[in-house]
Order: sequence, then C-alpha cells, then structure tokens
Amino acid sequence: MRNFKITLEYDGTNYCGWQHQKDSNRLPTIQNSIEQALRRIFNKKISITGSGRTDAGVHAFAQVASFKVNTNIPIKNIFKAVNTYLPEDIIIKEIEEVPLSFNARFSAKKKWYRYTILNNKINSVFNRFHVIHIPYILNVKLMQKAANIIKGKHDFSAIVLESNNENKTRQIYKLSVSKKRNYIIIDIIGNGFLYKMARRIVGILIDIGRGKMTIDDVKKIINATKVSCEIQTAPAKGLSLLKVCY
Amino acid sequence: MRNFKITLEYDGTNYCGWQHQKDSNRLPTIQNSIEQALRRIFNKKISITGSGRTDAGVHAFAQVASFKVNTNIPIKNIFKAVNTYLPEDIIIKEIEEVPLSFNARFSAKKKWYRYTILNNKINSVFNRFHVIHIPYILNVKLMQKAANIIKGKHDFSAIVLESNNENKTRQIYKLSVSKKRNYIIIDIIGNGFLYKMARRIVGILIDIGRGKMTIDDVKKIINATKVSCEIQTAPAKGLSLLKVCY
Repeated sequence: MRNFKITLEYDGTNYCGWQHQKDSNRLPTIQNSIEQALRRIFNKKISITGSGRTDAGVHAFAQVASFKVNTNIPIKNIFKAVNTYLPEDIIIKEIEEVPLSFNARFSAKKKWYRYTILNNKINSVFNRFHVIHIPYILNVKLMQKAANIIKGKHDFSAIVLESNNENKTRQIYKLSVSKKRNYIIIDIIGNGFLYKMARRIVGILIDIGRGKMTIDDVKKIINATKVSCEIQTAPAKGLSLLKVCY
Repeated sequence: MRNFKITLEYDGTNYCGWQHQKDSNRLPTIQNSIEQALRRIFNKKISITGSGRTDAGVHAFAQVASFKVNTNIPIKNIFKAVNTYLPEDIIIKEIEEVPLSFNARFSAKKKWYRYTILNNKINSVFNRFHVIHIPYILNVKLMQKAANIIKGKHDFSAIVLESNNENKTRQIYKLSVSKKRNYIIIDIIGNGFLYKMARRIVGILIDIGRGKMTIDDVKKIINATKVSCEIQTAPAKGLSLLKVCY
C-alpha cells in the first residue's frame, strides 16, 4: 500500500463544493471529479481525503488531499494521467509519496484563506467568478481594527451557523485587511475553520467597512456564545484556499 | 443628434468576436449585445461603430465604440441603463459625449494589444480563458530580437491572411517581449492591425522562442510580399485589446 499527497488548484465556480452538503444540488463536486479520474487510472474506487471541505463556488490555489492505493505505477505517470483525466477547471500541481501515517485532514496544522473584493465604482468582467464587487467605499482602517479583535483564540459559536455540540474554539493566527489599487485583500490563517466561518468573518469585516456594524458589535459577537443573526455570509466566489500547512 | 463615445471591457470567451465574420457561427457578437442593450434604452435600432473588430475569443480591457442618437436622456442615466442591460461579460467603463465628427474607427490613431503566455510546466486553471499555456521554455531574448525586426513600418502582406488588394502597410510603434515570474507578456502598439495580424506576429515570436523559426526566417518574412504558409496564428484567448488612442 502506498500513500499519496496531492496539491490541487481548482476553480470552484461550476462545483457544488469539495463534497456534497445537506443542501446538495446536481452540480458535481471537486472530490468526485478527482475520484473519477483516479478510478480510470487504478480501475477501482479510490477514496480521497481533503484537508477540509470548501463550499460551493469557493476556489483553491493549493488544496491538499491524500489517498492510499496498492499500485506499482510510477508516481510521474500517475501525475500525468490524473491531469489528463481531470476537467479543465481542476489541476494537480504536485504529487508526492508520503508515509502511511499522513492524512490530509488530520495532519493539517494551518490553513490560509484569501478573500478578494474589488472596491471600485465600476466592476470588471474579468473578476466575475473570483472577486466580489462592492461599489461603495469601504473603510479599510476600521476593517483592520475589527480584524485585530477577531484574531486570536476564541469560541466562534456566535459567528458560525452550526448549532451542534462540537467544540467551536479555533485559533486565528493572522487576519489582515490590505488595499492594493482598488482591491481589498483579506487574509485569514487559522488552525481550523468551521462551516462558513471564513465567509462570515469576512461578512463582519464588510459590514464594519460600510458602517453597518460597529467595533463594539464585533466585541460583543466575539464574547457571545449564541449565533447572532445579523452576520452576513460573504459570497463564496471571493474566497480561495491559498495554502495548507503540515 | 448627439454622439457618444463608450469605453468597453469584455471577456470574449463566449462571443463570436466584435462582429460576425464570414465563417460566422451561432455565438452572439459583442456589437450585437451592445446594440440590443441600446435598443432597449432608445426604443430603436442604434448602430455602433467599434475602433476595430476583435476576433472570436479575443478580450478587451478598453475597446472604444461610438454611436449617434437623438435623445434627451442624461448621460449618467444612459451609462447606468446600458450596464444594467448588458450581459455580465460586457461592461461599459466610461461614456462621454463627443463632437459629431468623432468616429471610433476612423479617429483611432493607435491600438495597444497585449498577449499573455504562461510559460511553466504546470498550467493554472484560473488562466484558462485569458492566457495560453506553453509548457516548454521559450527563449525570451531571441523573441525580443525578432520583435525588434518586426517593429517599424512594413508591408505585412507576408504575415497576414487576407489576399485582397488593400494596402497592407502598417506601422508598429512598440513590440516588446518581457517575462514576469512565469508569464511572458507581449505588447504590440500599432497604427492599425490587419485581420489576425497581432496573433500571427505572436505566432512568429512563439516559433522563434521554441527554436522552430530563425531570426533569418523573420527577416525573410518581413521583406516578402507573399503569404508565408509556415506562420501559425496564436490562439485568440491570449490576446486582449488594452487601449485605443485618439
């Protein structure tokens, strides 16, 4: 048995996310598309484990997944074959053989997400699948101030949508808001992300930037343990998984 | 009667070009899409004149067009309305009222095209509609040397595909080849472009870069007046119209 770690890039626009969720629709998933490609190579069902799920419409520059298979096929040939069989919006950028103990999900230590906003009166057609457009000016300084409050180790119960009993404490190592020309870039690095957590943090920052929420509101949310209904979930298409650290 | 100049951005992927060509298919054209939006505003057929045609699949960051119409609608309202009616892959970035003598085609003095190549072993899914991927390393220095030969005022009969009697002398003010990270950027500024001229110049430069053509071949082509069959036309999707100067 051999264990492989793959690094993937994908455009999530036409997918129902990494894996079907409860509210699943007929769109394919990233995971299925890769498993189908692997089935063509190994002539059997191969299950892959992703570092985590990405939602429908979310992109990845370097998602990581792993799978185990009993094969003699040289790694170079697997690499070429998978990319031949994958659709044009998913690509394997790297493949390496790893110890059997490696698991893309449980071995992951940090994840880096990036959210991109075009903050300009006029939209650009070239950004329409990967960047959200906000025509009114956002206050980046205030957004960064709110980001500093959200950063750190907290119970994110009041931010996320899941109401199960799972432990919702997560650590955010970095949460930065910067502006480059007309683009606002929000980088989030954390040890783990709950369902829609990254997009709801961005939702808070946008509402801060447009003056719909105050710094005091953010402090309350961070200290609360009940879901606040006033938090918006920022659109999926602006979010990309940039890196997974092991 | 009022005359309007509009500056457009479009993603050419889903279009049969600016206007239907002889080998036209069922895809819509950019021109038709804009004329349809204008018809909804003015309740009559409005003909627009583009600075020039872009081929199927070619993009524009700032194509310019003009149209005349007898109307009292304030310019701001026209601007908003057109963008409301346009599909999401075409956008008007600017509109201004110009003297009746202005004609987007005949008043144009210079056009700036950019061609982008990802020159890297692995492709990127995010570039698939706007950048071509060449996995083998291209020799950028040789490409720049060839570019210096093509630059200037020449009869481009041996490069273009049209065999009519039209004067084929054009002036290329700038033709540069530069590399930024793994991207090769080819910028072409000229006083006018014949059918597929920009893409065939890029085709020559790529063949120089990969060693399939020599600097001597380029000199011969530039001095010849008959179409050379060995020139490839670079794929449309890598080409964008960046600017039109008046």
